[in-house]
Amino acid sequence: MQVLLCSVKSTQPVRSDFKLYLAKAILPRWHGKQGSHCRLKKLKWLPPQAHEVRLKILFTSLCHTDVYFWEAKGQTPLFPRIFGHEAGGIVESVGPGVTDFQPGDQVLPVFTGECGDCSHCKSEESNMCDLLRINTDRGVMLTDGKSRFSIKGKPVYHFVGTSTFSEYTVCHVGSVAKINPAAPLDKVCILSCGVSTGLGAALNVAKPKKGHSVAVFGLGAVGLAAAEGARLSGASRIIGVDLNPIRFNEAKRFGVTEFVNPKDHKKPVQEVIAEMTGGGVDRSIECTGNVQAMISAFECVHDGWGVAVLVGVPNKDDVFKTHPMNLLNERTLKGTFFGNYKPRTDLPGVVEKYMNKELEVEKFITHSVPFTEINKAFDYMLRGEGLRCIIRMGD
Amino acid sequence: MQVLLCSVKSTQPVRSDFKLYLAKAILPRWHGKQGSHCRLKKLKWLPPQAHEVRLKILFTSLCHTDVYFWEAKGQTPLFPRIFGHEAGGIVESVGPGVTDFQPGDQVLPVFTGECGDCSHCKSEESNMCDLLRINTDRGVMLTDGKSRFSIKGKPVYHFVGTSTFSEYTVCHVGSVAKINPAAPLDKVCILSCGVSTGLGAALNVAKPKKGHSVAVFGLGAVGLAAAEGARLSGASRIIGVDLNPIRFNEAKRFGVTEFVNPKDHKKPVQEVIAEMTGGGVDRSIECTGNVQAMISAFECVHDGWGVAVLVGVPNKDDVFKTHPMNLLNERTLKGTFFGNYKPRTDLPGVVEKYMNKELEVEKFITHSVPFTEINKAFDYMLRGEGLRCIIRMGD
Repeated sequence: MQVLLCSVKSTQPVRSDFKLYLAKAILPRWHGKQGSHCRLKKLKWLPPQAHEVRLKILFTSLCHTDVYFWEAKGQTPLFPRIFGHEAGGIVESVGPGVTDFQPGDQVLPVFTGECGDCSHCKSEESNMCDLLRINTDRGVMLTDGKSRFSIKGKPVYHFVGTSTFSEYTVCHVGSVAKINPAAPLDKVCILSCGVSTGLGAALNVAKPKKGHSVAVFGLGAVGLAAAEGARLSGASRIIGVDLNPIRFNEAKRFGVTEFVNPKDHKKPVQEVIAEMTGGGVDRSIECTGNVQAMISAFECVHDGWGVAVLVGVPNKDDVFKTHPMNLLNERTLKGTFFGNYKPRTDLPGVVEKYMNKELEVEKFITHSVPFTEINKAFDYMLRGEGLRCIIRMGD
Repeated sequence: MQVLLCSVKSTQPVRSDFKLYLAKAILPRWHGKQGSHCRLKKLKWLPPQAHEVRLKILFTSLCHTDVYFWEAKGQTPLFPRIFGHEAGGIVESVGPGVTDFQPGDQVLPVFTGECGDCSHCKSEESNMCDLLRINTDRGVMLTDGKSRFSIKGKPVYHFVGTSTFSEYTVCHVGSVAKINPAAPLDKVCILSCGVSTGLGAALNVAKPKKGHSVAVFGLGAVGLAAAEGARLSGASRIIGVDLNPIRFNEAKRFGVTEFVNPKDHKKPVQEVIAEMTGGGVDRSIECTGNVQAMISAFECVHDGWGVAVLVGVPNKDDVFKTHPMNLLNERTLKGTFFGNYKPRTDLPGVVEKYMNKELEVEKFITHSVPFTEINKAFDYMLRGEGLRCIIRMGD
C-alpha cells in the first residue's frame, strides 16, 4: 500500500525551495529520497463511518490547486496532510447506513460536495453546498471531527475531503459521484476538477450561442476546457489570450482560432480584442486568477449583451475595479465555482458526454507516470509543460 | 403655442443658483418672470424630414435626468436647448417616406431609439441601438445635422431626440413608440422613461422568482417602479433601502415590505441585509447611481444564485470595487439601460400591462400642473417631494 504525505517546510516557501517531503515530526527518519513516494507500513487507513465511503484510488492527477496549497501561500498549513483531489476509483467499503453506494461502484471523488438538503443544493442555480462546500482548512471528517488516516495513533490530515494521493482514502458520500461503470477511469478521472471547471464555465455559465465569439484568458487545462465548451456550443471565433506563446500551438487542438499575447501590444488587451471583434466578444472566460486579466476579460465583452465569466481564483487582497458605466451598458459579470456543476448530480452526465464522444478528454492528457514518479507530475506542472499528468496508483 | 427653453448659466452651477431661464443671447428680452414658460411668437417649429415625425405633445413630466443635464454637471452644455423627454402625444405630421406613422397616432417619444437594423436592434438581448442610443451631446437631427427649432434663423437645440417641453417637437421615427389609442396619455406618458426603467430592471433583468427576496436601493420613482416589478414577479420580501425615512411610508404602496436606512446602522448595509435574510437577498436593484450603493447592492446578494442589477447612472470618475471572490462565489452583476426595453418593440406592451390593470401607474403620479407652472415640477423634484408631476401642455 502506498501513500504520499505532503506538507510544507514553512508558510513562506520560495519557488527554488519547493520540496515534497515526509513529515519529519511523525516519521522517525527520512524515507527515500526527497520528494519521492514512500512505503509507509505504519500508516493506518481507518474504516469509513456514517455517511462515508472508503475508496480505492486507481488514477489521480495533479491539479494546480494541489500545488497552490502545497506551497501554503497565505494559509496556515495543516501538517502533515495528504493532497490530491482529481481522481477516479472504486468503492472499497461503505460506512454504517450508507445505501447510495456499494463496494465496487466506480466513482469520482470531488473536492466540493453536495449534501442534497441545504438551500444551495435545493437551488437550481447553485452548487455551493453549505455542508460540503470546499474547505481547504478542514483536515478532518465531518462525522466526528477526526481523520481517517493515522501513523502511530497520530492523525494525518485530509485535504478538501478527497486526499487522493493515497491508494485508499475516505470521503463523505456527498463528495463522491457514482459514474458509468464502463467509463475508463484513466481518462475520466480528470473530469473531477479542472476540466469540468472550464467546461462548465462555458456550457453552464457563459453559454455562448452558435456563431458567437468567445475570448478565453489563460490556456492551461481549465482555459482549454473552457475553449472546448465554447467549441461544443458552436462558437465561431475562440480567441485565446496568454502570456506564453508556446501554448498557442497546443490550443489549436481545442478549437482556439486566434491568439492574443498581451505582451505584443502597447494598448490594454481589452482594447485589442474590441478592435478585433467590432466592439467586443460575445462571451469571455477568465481562467488565470490574475485580477488584471479579470478586469480585461470583463471589459472586452460587447456592450448590450456581453457576458464575462470569472473562473480563476484570485489572491486574498485583490480588488476588482471597473467604471460602473461598463456595467450600465448592459454587460454581465458572473463568477463560477466548479463550472456550476453539482458534483453528484451533474458529473455522471459529464462522463456521459465523453462516452458519447461529444467531449474529447484524451487531448488533455499529455503525460502519465506511476505513483512512484509523482514528482515528475509536479515538475511538469511547475515548468508549465503539458496539461494533465495521470498518476497510476496501481503500477 | 408654447415652449420652454432651458439652458444653464454656467458649467459649474451651485444648487443655490439653480435657474430655469430663457436664452438671453437669442431672445431680445426677458419674457415673463424667471423660470416661467414663455410665449415665443418667433420660435419656429420646422417640418419633419425623412425618417422623422412631428408630434403634438399633450402631457409631459419631469424626470431627474432633465434636472441633471439642466445643471450641466461635467458636460459642455448646448445653449439654448429644449429639455423634456418623458411624455405622450399624437403625431401631427410625418416626413417624406415615413410609412410607420400617420397623423393622429398616439405615441410616446423616447430618449433612446431603435433603428431596427443594427446589431443591437437585431440582438434579442440589447436595446442599445447603435444609431439612436441616447446621446446627450447631440442637439440636432440625424437626417441633416440640423435642429427643427429656430428663433430668427438661429438654432435652438434638441435634447435626447425628444425635447418634450414644447407643444410641438420633431423626433426620429426610431425614437417614437406607437401605443394603444385608447390609453390615457395623462397616465401612460410616464412610461416613456423612469417607470419603465425601474420596472424593466426587475422584470427583464433581475427577474425575481415567486417567493424571492429583493432589495431595492433608492426609493424614488425608478426604485419604486423596480419594487412594483418585484411585486408583479411574486417576490415575497421587498426590502427598501434609502437614506430618507420619509420615503418609507410611500414605498409601502409599492409592495415594499421592509426598510433599511443605512444611517441607522454602524455596519455596512450589505451586512445588515445579509443578516436579515440568512446570507443575502436573491436579487437587488440599485437605483441611486451612488457607487457605494452599487457596491452594497452587489455584495448584499446571496452567494450561489444572487443577481444584482445596476440602474442608477454613476458619476464620471466613479470606480466600482469589490473582492473578486464575491463574484467567484456565484454572484451575478449586471447593468441595465431603460430596463432593457426596446423602445418601439416593447413599450406598447408596457402600456398594455397598464390597460390590463396589471401595472398600477396612477400611484406614481403625485402632482399635476399646467405647463405655465412647470417650475413647480422642478421645485417638487428638487425638494424630493412626490414622484411624478404631470405637466399638462394643453391647459
